[in-house]
Amino acid sequence: MVKNEWGSSTYPLVPGHEIVGIVTEVGSKVEKFKVGDKVGVGCMVGACHSCDSCADDLENYCPKIILTYGATYYDGTTTHGGYSDVMIAEERYVVRFPDNLPLDAGAPLLCAGITVYSPLQHFGFTKPGMHIGVVGLGGLGHVAVKFAKAFGVKVTVISTSPSKKKEATEHLGADSFLVSRDPDQMQAAMGTMDGIIDTVSAVHPLFPLIGLLKSHGKLVMVGAPDRPLELPIFPLLMGRKIVAGSCIGGMKETQEMIDFAGKHNITADVEVISIDYVNTAMERLRKADVRYRFVIDIGNTLKAA
Amino acid sequence: MVKNEWGSSTYPLVPGHEIVGIVTEVGSKVEKFKVGDKVGVGCMVGACHSCDSCADDLENYCPKIILTYGATYYDGTTTHGGYSDVMIAEERYVVRFPDNLPLDAGAPLLCAGITVYSPLQHFGFTKPGMHIGVVGLGGLGHVAVKFAKAFGVKVTVISTSPSKKKEATEHLGADSFLVSRDPDQMQAAMGTMDGIIDTVSAVHPLFPLIGLLKSHGKLVMVGAPDRPLELPIFPLLMGRKIVAGSCIGGMKETQEMIDFAGKHNITADVEVISIDYVNTAMERLRKADVRYRFVIDIGNTLKAA
Repeated sequence: MVKNEWGSSTYPLVPGHEIVGIVTEVGSKVEKFKVGDKVGVGCMVGACHSCDSCADDLENYCPKIILTYGATYYDGTTTHGGYSDVMIAEERYVVRFPDNLPLDAGAPLLCAGITVYSPLQHFGFTKPGMHIGVVGLGGLGHVAVKFAKAFGVKVTVISTSPSKKKEATEHLGADSFLVSRDPDQMQAAMGTMDGIIDTVSAVHPLFPLIGLLKSHGKLVMVGAPDRPLELPIFPLLMGRKIVAGSCIGGMKETQEMIDFAGKHNITADVEVISIDYVNTAMERLRKADVRYRFVIDIGNTLKAA
Repeated sequence: MVKNEWGSSTYPLVPGHEIVGIVTEVGSKVEKFKVGDKVGVGCMVGACHSCDSCADDLENYCPKIILTYGATYYDGTTTHGGYSDVMIAEERYVVRFPDNLPLDAGAPLLCAGITVYSPLQHFGFTKPGMHIGVVGLGGLGHVAVKFAKAFGVKVTVISTSPSKKKEATEHLGADSFLVSRDPDQMQAAMGTMDGIIDTVSAVHPLFPLIGLLKSHGKLVMVGAPDRPLELPIFPLLMGRKIVAGSCIGGMKETQEMIDFAGKHNITADVEVISIDYVNTAMERLRKADVRYRFVIDIGNTLKAA
């Protein structure tokens, strides 16, 4: 998940950074795409292309990253996102969608998907036999469960809501479920996990999550609470444990992620809405009343696609 | 640094876990040592020898680690440490001292040395050309500077005390010095470090330290503040940065560390005292009035050695 923290918002602002569509036109130097291709654009549309991060295909960590909306583009204009029926993007920032992946349910992978796929890969949470925790079962969490299961690891969902157990284990295929507010359940699971992907953006305690890790385990934050969290140091020391952050992924890895999703039929669970419904959708988002992402069908073309 | 947090202290208690001496007797099954050998014992004297950590030569992360003092030994007795003229230890927990390493100035390496050597190695802070920060210039920090310089990396000491600059750069050989309370100095050094070893046990802000790291940089805590520290999550995400903990090292690595110290003539800066002086030494420790470790010459033999 990317917040536009680098600058203040300027209006008018067109948001949207999980964008899919069909190529309608290509520039004369474009090599990767042709008219009619099924493509997507995620959280970024530019970077410096000369720093170490860019050289390592990690444009997402480039200090001069240009976010898809609300940022300043190379030419000084403000970038606008995907709540639009047309969009122009440089081909480096466009990913090819696998034929079998539906545009609507595939779209959220461009942010939510890569946000969890990249740390699963980078921190080595992909070895069959490993036990991985996923904290929070929302837009990011439910996709994290699907990717982790596709890698063949054992997945435990950790949530404050006991009501999500059935959804997690029966619908999403998680192997087990922990209620984070139940001290007995948490105690019984102490020291059993190789890694945890924490998708929660609200302020929450890290101490019990660090306790769930085995020695040398890694807790990776992908949600961004707006206030600092309390970090107990002694439990980190005692097991050489790690708390890390991870933010989306580079374009090369985003293409790998979407190809992997195509191969394993991984999509987000979505509710497709029309643009007229967005204010209602915002109200429902505030109440967490969506499983798990709204997808806006800007041109009323998805149903027909 | 190891705190004896697993159990409450029972008295009488003999502390001391940076212990050196000469072997006076060996058991019938001892293979590694003979009478007259120069040896040391560090923070631990036992572990389970059947868990994954023990199998990986990481007895220091064994859940059943037996600390050198104040812990319960295999036979149910309480372990006693090095403030004693004799000590019995299992050979797995004894390290061989290089001939050229003085017993007094080498002793603190058995805890302070391995505490900083192990994370420098494990987190890859040993590649020439890297830039490593050392936070705090005390017993751990001054040895961290010496090891890091021996690995050939650029070292910056970060301290609250401007008065330590000369000591850090001229005496210990650090390449540069940052006053952590000087916002201009800290700002100028933002994003320049590959890794940081944080030796400070007092509560202190992590935010500026995370800011000193390059993308993918690692902040490793080896001090253990007794209250949680504030961890800002967003700066971790934006650079895929890591906050980790590390606690001493396994016996195999402790032997490697002491051999490396012998090869590179790395010792702690010590003040040798007699046992009669310990109460005064405790008072001076409270005021941080020692550069950097007191070494107690229990038998009044070191000067003659």
